Amino acid sequence: MTMKLAHVGRQAILAVTVAVVPLGILVFGHTPIDSVSLAADPSSTKMTRPTAAQYDTKGQLMRPEDHREWIFVGAPVTPNELNDGKAAFPEFHNVYIDPTSFAAYKKSGKFPEGTVILKELVSVGSKAMPSGNGYFQGEFVSLEAMVKDNTRFKEEPGGWAFFRFGEAPDYKPVGARMKTADCANCHTGATEDYVFTATYPVLRAAKARQMSK
Amino acid sequence: MTMKLAHVGRQAILAVTVAVVPLGILVFGHTPIDSVSLAADPSSTKMTRPTAAQYDTKGQLMRPEDHREWIFVGAPVTPNELNDGKAAFPEFHNVYIDPTSFAAYKKSGKFPEGTVILKELVSVGSKAMPSGNGYFQGEFVSLEAMVKDNTRFKEEPGGWAFFRFGEAPDYKPVGARMKTADCANCHTGATEDYVFTATYPVLRAAKARQMSK
Repeated sequence: MTMKLAHVGRQAILAVTVAVVPLGILVFGHTPIDSVSLAADPSSTKMTRPTAAQYDTKGQLMRPEDHREWIFVGAPVTPNELNDGKAAFPEFHNVYIDPTSFAAYKKSGKFPEGTVILKELVSVGSKAMPSGNGYFQGEFVSLEAMVKDNTRFKEEPGGWAFFRFGEAPDYKPVGARMKTADCANCHTGATEDYVFTATYPVLRAAKARQMSK
Repeated sequence: MTMKLAHVGRQAILAVTVAVVPLGILVFGHTPIDSVSLAADPSSTKMTRPTAAQYDTKGQLMRPEDHREWIFVGAPVTPNELNDGKAAFPEFHNVYIDPTSFAAYKKSGKFPEGTVILKELVSVGSKAMPSGNGYFQGEFVSLEAMVKDNTRFKEEPGGWAFFRFGEAPDYKPVGARMKTADCANCHTGATEDYVFTATYPVLRAAKARQMSK
């Protein structure tokens, strides 16, 4: 497999031929090698396509390692002071999508089966910095996930199930199911497949690139 | 090289032995293979450590491909209405660090030479969504970078130089130098090495992990 070299003075660079490029490495990327998760076929040494959603025997979602190295999607902030002191989420919502599914989304413009979208709530910290008055991130608060799987969660709207990993800084290693109704009430009104793409330019740009081909 | 498998039911998974794991692949991660940039030694087939900062012959910074797949650092928002209508940056600031340097930062707690930190300004879009009133991202506005290189930019405070790739959606392929004084005025007051770590819990958590070892 030969990689085209981009953004480098070509006269100073050799094309590099890489003999073996395991798919898992490409997908999980800069995750440290000692924490790479690969889905392997136990009956052979062939690797199957890795998926970010892994479950324990109780059907709870395994918390991904290094989720902060996933693809950042958006970070809305809904502070208490703009919601009569009663914000549903008085924090920043740092939203990520797993790299495998983002790669598929860029090609198809659709969230593939197995998509994991994480929401990490982050408190409002400072409200004034050299760049001006506003909202700046403080401390991590909690971590939740939504997973699309129309086989495993065929009873759920759009096949999306919701999980919660608890409070920072000691997130649980597995996330228990949340009541879908509590989450889907809002997500049913989302732009695209229960995801608020309208407020996520990163996703819109990825989709536009796909559509312009 | 054997990868330990994490977060997967171990009884269903085989340890996978990968014979060849090129460093560039590990570092650049989920970047599409056709846009991976590798710094290679032209006098041999050995790859050297890739760096995110690449320059053209005029010393302008090459714009990285797929910067939105770098490590997300933070997203402060400083809207006009909170700054007497005269915000210096009336947008969200989506801030990213290159994966290579983030990996080094996790180990050392310091920004290595060659660190690239990108700031993509994103307009405020909606101010009300099902999650509440607040600030939600609209459209990309512009893209800027700061690069640490105490050899190349030895005259600059901390070795940091600043570049600008222009306006969205047609960012330029190379970024011209900005006047350091225009940027360093604020960045001199930053928490850590000209970076506003105080408002970036992602960086603080990475540093804490390093310090707890």
